[in-house]
Amino acid sequence: MDIWFTENHTEGYKVSWRIDKILHSERSPYQEIAVVESPDLGRALLLDNTVQTTTRFEFIYHEMIAHVPLMLHPRPQRVMVIGGGDGGTVREVLKHPAVETVELVEIDERVIEVSKEWLPQISFALDSEKVNIKIVDGLQYVKQHASRYDVIIVDCTDPVGPSLELFTKNFYRDVFNALKADGIMVSQTGSPTFSSHFTEAVKGIQEVFPHSSPYLTCEPTYIAGFWSFTIGSKKYKFDNINSDRMATIETRYYTPDIHRAAFVLPKYIEQMIK
Amino acid sequence: MDIWFTENHTEGYKVSWRIDKILHSERSPYQEIAVVESPDLGRALLLDNTVQTTTRFEFIYHEMIAHVPLMLHPRPQRVMVIGGGDGGTVREVLKHPAVETVELVEIDERVIEVSKEWLPQISFALDSEKVNIKIVDGLQYVKQHASRYDVIIVDCTDPVGPSLELFTKNFYRDVFNALKADGIMVSQTGSPTFSSHFTEAVKGIQEVFPHSSPYLTCEPTYIAGFWSFTIGSKKYKFDNINSDRMATIETRYYTPDIHRAAFVLPKYIEQMIK
Repeated sequence: MDIWFTENHTEGYKVSWRIDKILHSERSPYQEIAVVESPDLGRALLLDNTVQTTTRFEFIYHEMIAHVPLMLHPRPQRVMVIGGGDGGTVREVLKHPAVETVELVEIDERVIEVSKEWLPQISFALDSEKVNIKIVDGLQYVKQHASRYDVIIVDCTDPVGPSLELFTKNFYRDVFNALKADGIMVSQTGSPTFSSHFTEAVKGIQEVFPHSSPYLTCEPTYIAGFWSFTIGSKKYKFDNINSDRMATIETRYYTPDIHRAAFVLPKYIEQMIK
Repeated sequence: MDIWFTENHTEGYKVSWRIDKILHSERSPYQEIAVVESPDLGRALLLDNTVQTTTRFEFIYHEMIAHVPLMLHPRPQRVMVIGGGDGGTVREVLKHPAVETVELVEIDERVIEVSKEWLPQISFALDSEKVNIKIVDGLQYVKQHASRYDVIIVDCTDPVGPSLELFTKNFYRDVFNALKADGIMVSQTGSPTFSSHFTEAVKGIQEVFPHSSPYLTCEPTYIAGFWSFTIGSKKYKFDNINSDRMATIETRYYTPDIHRAAFVLPKYIEQMIK
């Protein structure tokens, strides 16, 4: 078979993956959802023709979006995940014994259902008793809950369609208000090289939170080059990792040394956000 | 214009860049050489249909292959670069005032000529009086010069065609012999994710040198995900950076903090090379 899936990253740059099988495809009220199988990716979840997560590489993204904020918080009990309907972020959050509840706020119920059916090794944690699934718009939901969360993780698609508002300063201010006095937020903020929203998103978080910084990883399935997350913290700085906790947390990518190294930015990226 | 250049990274993964112009193309005795212009890459040098260097992103690769070994050496006077006919590595090497001579050992004279004509901002340093260009096979050349170099940089294409032997333990042993008693070598060793030669190359260098380690960067034009270099050192370890030297060296990517962070490997990559 010579069937390829192509993702247009920019007007002049596209990536193609060979597809062995289309396992599922549908149009939900919010987006096109598909699950495919590829020799290089394993199983992949596509939303609106963009690879969201793959069984081969998802550990990189999910470990880095979850463990960095959680390891900085001395006792993360109440966590909110906005987006993340595939369940991978929730799975990593639940590795921290301090966590009592995770609210998963996902606008599109079909993403959850499709992930439960086709990506069980990513989504299984959604069945945990500690998980509280809310099928609502995260934008509205954060406004309704002041001073309530220890950690809020924005695990959303890139800023097109339903995710557009999740990259604005107004939203970051609502997230700030929903956090407790020592709360921490993190959002994926795209590729510093190819995503036009990177700088603006980082600056939005910088303006709202007293401590903030992007940190970097390299996820082969996303746009080539670095991928960024940006953390905003009300109280804790980024060098104070609760490393002793790692004794009970199993990871494949994350280590406390990787945590510290991820905050070291190449000179040209540092200059982009000054 | 809707003209695309496509690079097949694996059997199931390919990347395409829009091309505005083909500035040059020829077949040398060793390979196909082309220079194209692309909206996302700037000007790009292609060898055998593989992107080697681009005016937009070359600083990342060239700074990381040159400054890491040179900053570890207290007084790098005599440097050899094997491959690197585009001149970008030589340009970075010459930023270190201690350097007295750089021998550029390139098998294909046409790569140098084409780079001089079409990529002057990368190749200009090749005209320096400190540069000694040898149009010979690096494989043979290292065998002929024992205990002579402070730093040897293997800036070669991936292990197909003329570069195949540059990833073997026999070659690394010859490099070891060509270095002085406190010499340092580095080679690009591909993508830990998609290049099948990564593990073997790292192990080859590990077996020959008392101190060795891969270090990572993220160059958007190479295979998605991390790109690796592997350093082999006879005497100096990797945490002893001569940072004061940075005062006179201008970079866009490299900093001493980036240097240290690049040696921090994700857990799964660490496990690959144990």
